[in-house]
Amino acid sequence: MSKILLTGFEPWGEWTINPSGEVASSLDGHKIGGVSIVTGIVPVVHGEDIETVRPLIEQHDPVAVVSIGLGGSSGLNVERVAVNIKEIDSDEGTIDLPVVEGGPDAYLSTLPTRDMVEYIRSQGVPTQLSYSAGTFLCNHLMYSVLHHLRASERDVISGFIHIPPMPEQVVGSGRPSMSLDTVRQGVVAALECVEDHIRHSASV
Amino acid sequence: MSKILLTGFEPWGEWTINPSGEVASSLDGHKIGGVSIVTGIVPVVHGEDIETVRPLIEQHDPVAVVSIGLGGSSGLNVERVAVNIKEIDSDEGTIDLPVVEGGPDAYLSTLPTRDMVEYIRSQGVPTQLSYSAGTFLCNHLMYSVLHHLRASERDVISGFIHIPPMPEQVVGSGRPSMSLDTVRQGVVAALECVEDHIRHSASV
Amino acid sequence: MSKILLTGFEPWGEWTINPSGEVASSLDGHKIGGVSIVTGIVPVVHGEDIETVRPLIEQHDPVAVVSIGLGGSSGLNVERVAVNIKEIDSDEGTIDLPVVEGGPDAYLSTLPTRDMVEYIRSQGVPTQLSYSAGTFLCNHLMYSVLHHLRASERDVISGFIHIPPMPEQVVGSGRPSMSLDTVRQGVVAALECVEDHIRHSASV
Amino acid sequence: MSKILLTGFEPWGEWTINPSGEVASSLDGHKIGGVSIVTGIVPVVHGEDIETVRPLIEQHDPVAVVSIGLGGSSGLNVERVAVNIKEIDSDEGTIDLPVVEGGPDAYLSTLPTRDMVEYIRSQGVPTQLSYSAGTFLCNHLMYSVLHHLRASERDVISGFIHIPPMPEQVVGSGRPSMSLDTVRQGVVAALECVEDHIRHSASV
Repeated sequence: MSKILLTGFEPWGEWTINPSGEVASSLDGHKIGGVSIVTGIVPVVHGEDIETVRPLIEQHDPVAVVSIGLGGSSGLNVERVAVNIKEIDSDEGTIDLPVVEGGPDAYLSTLPTRDMVEYIRSQGVPTQLSYSAGTFLCNHLMYSVLHHLRASERDVISGFIHIPPMPEQVVGSGRPSMSLDTVRQGVVAALECVEDHIRHSASV
Repeated sequence: MSKILLTGFEPWGEWTINPSGEVASSLDGHKIGGVSIVTGIVPVVHGEDIETVRPLIEQHDPVAVVSIGLGGSSGLNVERVAVNIKEIDSDEGTIDLPVVEGGPDAYLSTLPTRDMVEYIRSQGVPTQLSYSAGTFLCNHLMYSVLHHLRASERDVISGFIHIPPMPEQVVGSGRPSMSLDTVRQGVVAALECVEDHIRHSASV
Repeated sequence: MSKILLTGFEPWGEWTINPSGEVASSLDGHKIGGVSIVTGIVPVVHGEDIETVRPLIEQHDPVAVVSIGLGGSSGLNVERVAVNIKEIDSDEGTIDLPVVEGGPDAYLSTLPTRDMVEYIRSQGVPTQLSYSAGTFLCNHLMYSVLHHLRASERDVISGFIHIPPMPEQVVGSGRPSMSLDTVRQGVVAALECVEDHIRHSASV
Repeated sequence: MSKILLTGFEPWGEWTINPSGEVASSLDGHKIGGVSIVTGIVPVVHGEDIETVRPLIEQHDPVAVVSIGLGGSSGLNVERVAVNIKEIDSDEGTIDLPVVEGGPDAYLSTLPTRDMVEYIRSQGVPTQLSYSAGTFLCNHLMYSVLHHLRASERDVISGFIHIPPMPEQVVGSGRPSMSLDTVRQGVVAALECVEDHIRHSASV
């Protein structure tokens, strides 16, 4: 049975729960259409992220890698672009390093992003296309996975989805939130759309 | 047993479900601390709103009237101010009429608004104080109820809470939302705080 | 010749220039239609604000008092409501005191606010009606002046306008700004509208 | 004398003035440090944009191409990324075409973007780094110019800056704006930073 690798992140800093990790874990072993979901929980550390995911790709040989991470918008953000920029605070102020030295300027998501947004919305979950995954770990993982798949010439599609914080994480901030149930429903819809896309691609 | 009257609104226009009415209905007959919740669902029509609520106040003789309505913010907005302005679109453009001819410029909520915000947040639900309930039906009902209670010299506290739309109501808009479960949890917390406030006031 | 009293605020805290004071000072002695502009610059201290303005009202006997203060929105905010709430940080957390003990819950601006917005826009300056002047010094002054005029039974209209910060005050914050020239143009338009309103009221 | 090519856009649709074109025209022939500014005004039509700019590059042989266009944010947005996506409304809904068939997924700006932001702010003009130039004409021009310079192996740096609308363009919308003077001051600062960067690169 084909597999989709779904990754979330570990808690970090002030966030003692990371909804991306919670949702990923909760879907481990689930069947979506004709595929089985395998999962990985990634540490929030530059470098360790891709070091965690690369062996899982080796182990599971998935047809797609979908990563989710905690963002700040009001709905799911299906990311389209990962840039070769890693922003670092140094003694000389903020500086930009490449995610991959000599790598291309950016990768576009190879997931069916526009169809995913449309389908997730049809399932009642607020969703937008997004053209920036930031310059921190989420972008780093998205770029690293796309680069690894390209470099290893695997025929595997991949991309990233930012999810909102849970209500209890933003009680006094005025920031938008989304319940874990709704996020999970949106991620399942995303995976269904990816599965459907792969099935149709395969049958062509 | 003392009663709190909780009102929500009917669906209107493009909103075929009104979460404020859904949440109010779901709490009808519930006990919160030492009080019983009675509810009313209010039509979204200037004038009919208070005409619906006034007989419920007569019938139930509540210790508090808490009204909820659909707003647009990311969390519950506990409203502090109702103004004597009713905004109307006319042939000559937008005009301002008073909610109550000759009424005071505004009423402050008589609910323990600041304590409510603190307590609702402690229950994990995003909440803010708000200083404007708008100039449409939500403000109209809030003003009308406070005016009626003052005019009838009832010793009844009252106020208004705006709630966010449900996720499925804003899928493509980029606007924030909140699941009905989370909203309901926040409204229950609000009612618990009101009940606690009344109990302590009574015991003084 | 009739006078309009225009007040701005002094610099405070991190704001070493206060555009509201700059604009007010720059208009001192100007003629707008049939009236002369007199001005006062108000310290950013609860209590001292109205203590500064009250003698100016005695001295000048103006037909209108227009106060401006620094806000955070993208355009001029013509305020409609001043509430009887003064928010204070105390050892026990944030508490609410009244601006005027025993005063009414709120005052509506007695300026022609809706006409002002329309006219200021027609002069090319972004403007909105606003229903909350906050709970700090701007609201305090607006409420205090309206209360003083009501209490002293003067036939003087009054209200408040929030203005955006200057560009150089928000360079890295992502917050909106407005050049002093554009703000000044908007304030002049506001005063023209007030003058026109008074002239037509007088002639009735 | 070395030249920097500065491009702005023509008015289009509801925007009868385009501040990007106004600012560019106003700087034509100016000297900034050791360089002379030459300008081009670009039609708001996919394809015609780069067709207008390419001959100007041939003609002037500039050391840098800086393009500016009308955006919606509160300050100047110094764009870092141009993506190979051109969003088109078709009968079958919104579809994505490439800006350049077979081109790389994206180009990073080759201007000193982070230094530009710091320097523009030091001149009192609100500015941010931005990681998405959208999917319409501004992104199209930014991508097309970077692709052309790469393809023609010219040693010319290039990038894009989004500017806010003028106050008179957004009077009733609640959207942020910036006066033409402030925008112009920010663009001059951007060009000074680019000139400084080129001078130091050359001297290395």
